[in-house]
Amino acid sequence: MSNIERIVRISSDKMKSEFSRILLSLGFSDHKADKCAEIFTLNSLEGVYSHGVNRFPRFVKNIKEGHIKPDAVPSLVHRTGSLEQWNGNLGPGPLNASFATERAMELAQENGIGLVALANTNHWMRGGTYGWQAARKGFVYIGWTNTCPIMPAWGATDPRLGNNPFVIAVPFLSEAIVLDFAMTQFSYGKMESFRNEGTQLPYPGGFNNQGELTTKPEEVLETWRALPVGYWKGAGLSLLLDIMATILSGGLSTHEIKSCKPEFSVSQVFIAINISSLKNFPAIGNSIQQIIDDLQKSKPENETTKIRYPGENVVHVRNENLKNGIPVNKQIWEKILSL
Amino acid sequence: MSNIERIVRISSDKMKSEFSRILLSLGFSDHKADKCAEIFTLNSLEGVYSHGVNRFPRFVKNIKEGHIKPDAVPSLVHRTGSLEQWNGNLGPGPLNASFATERAMELAQENGIGLVALANTNHWMRGGTYGWQAARKGFVYIGWTNTCPIMPAWGATDPRLGNNPFVIAVPFLSEAIVLDFAMTQFSYGKMESFRNEGTQLPYPGGFNNQGELTTKPEEVLETWRALPVGYWKGAGLSLLLDIMATILSGGLSTHEIKSCKPEFSVSQVFIAINISSLKNFPAIGNSIQQIIDDLQKSKPENETTKIRYPGENVVHVRNENLKNGIPVNKQIWEKILSL
Repeated sequence: MSNIERIVRISSDKMKSEFSRILLSLGFSDHKADKCAEIFTLNSLEGVYSHGVNRFPRFVKNIKEGHIKPDAVPSLVHRTGSLEQWNGNLGPGPLNASFATERAMELAQENGIGLVALANTNHWMRGGTYGWQAARKGFVYIGWTNTCPIMPAWGATDPRLGNNPFVIAVPFLSEAIVLDFAMTQFSYGKMESFRNEGTQLPYPGGFNNQGELTTKPEEVLETWRALPVGYWKGAGLSLLLDIMATILSGGLSTHEIKSCKPEFSVSQVFIAINISSLKNFPAIGNSIQQIIDDLQKSKPENETTKIRYPGENVVHVRNENLKNGIPVNKQIWEKILSL
Repeated sequence: MSNIERIVRISSDKMKSEFSRILLSLGFSDHKADKCAEIFTLNSLEGVYSHGVNRFPRFVKNIKEGHIKPDAVPSLVHRTGSLEQWNGNLGPGPLNASFATERAMELAQENGIGLVALANTNHWMRGGTYGWQAARKGFVYIGWTNTCPIMPAWGATDPRLGNNPFVIAVPFLSEAIVLDFAMTQFSYGKMESFRNEGTQLPYPGGFNNQGELTTKPEEVLETWRALPVGYWKGAGLSLLLDIMATILSGGLSTHEIKSCKPEFSVSQVFIAINISSLKNFPAIGNSIQQIIDDLQKSKPENETTKIRYPGENVVHVRNENLKNGIPVNKQIWEKILSL
């Protein structure tokens, strides 16, 4: 059976209403069910199926197991000027993260820059979501989360670092430029996909049990020695992101989160910068446009290569999926309908 | 002639006084000569010779050519809450950067977090310097600079991205944990060293003229296709760091800086966070210690591997060089004495 036969196309309205129905049945309020369904649908609409529709059944499982509290909302722990510490109270990660992003923007509106550190929250799904949220409202955004341990320190064999996705976003035209990357060169999910399709990784993704770099996904899935981006550099960045998330929020660090199954009570940081109050604000749109224009003048390495900026393809995928429906694996969709 | 025969050991006092003598002769005020000599000496003392003593003759050349203005100081362009935009007026990069770091800490002291964006400044030499400066005073620090174009976009062959060093620092005991990395996997300077020693890079450092990844430094030095850290991820991070530095400071972007010889009028960002005002401040030292303790429990891949945190070795090198003198290539030291 080919991939195409296994795919159904679901409109975003239909998807959102199914998600909402399920969340309401799990004790979400009307407003929270609507908002959470919207985020899962948006992630799917924008092509990040792994943290949208494909992840929804696991999200439901985590709610049923009690690791995600449907009725919990963030509570303010401490404010010092333009920096706030919040407790996520183990509420739904996407709702907590969206709230924290909004709050960081309010602080930036007052003070030029705002930082919200969020302890005791849950997986935010797709990090880029909050970058888009802020940048489309005209803010520069820097945010990150820590995670369970999933990657060894540089030179080590046992996983003690998180993959700690890191997001930077800036407004661009009516859309945004959004960089969203984890500290492993390839996620384990991506490596599983390669393995299932019987193909090798395009670049080494980790170490095999001989301690050698390998492009064979099955070898990395065996050792759990995923390669940090930039080798020792990404391992260092993972550590520093974890330290900052932990101390700024007062929440758990990667070594305290410990378990990946289930993973809960993570720590996150959300920084928003209000560029509309800058002296050069009227020139900023043009300035970014010129940077992108220059980038796109690059000589591609071959005729088929298109030089893109981070997030460029998202708008394209969003429009495609709005037109044709969101592609979903039939089995996954049937599973969701049965929830 | 072996390396050891070509090395002289210079005390940090002697080095600093030579630097200061030269800077005074170039029109630096007493105070500025002292401060600038101190930073170049510290960078050397802490083992970053490439951006300390070895770079000093080029710094002098750039002053003599008029690209660095000895008497220029930063001027405030605009303030909005806890965010300030400054013009570096092409003053000496290390002095401007050190000033901006101090100012970001003052803003953070007032407001929890402070951001200083600095336009029209010069090469700050070693980025980590300002991370150490802030973290040893108890602040969390995030800073970066843009640079001239030196690395192709992902999938491209002509250099349009900067290597844009990115620094994160947190206080640790009386010292700091400092991550300081550029967006190229190996700097061109490092690749030249490998080539001069006739050795290969430990990992691929760029593309050869066949478009293949290579560990041969001479091949990358020919194509100027240095590899971004984490492939497409580091290329994206470089772009976003440039965009943010440009729009927050109102200064030049990488494509406007254009030339690497000489490179001048770069844009920089300095963020300081005042952790002493956080609710969990009393627990922070212990929290970082536990994260480092966990990291150091890692199983090393072999008996000779030591698992280190970023900056750990700096303290060791500093103490060694304080005791034995700073190792300097004899020719470079003679050159400096003749300036």
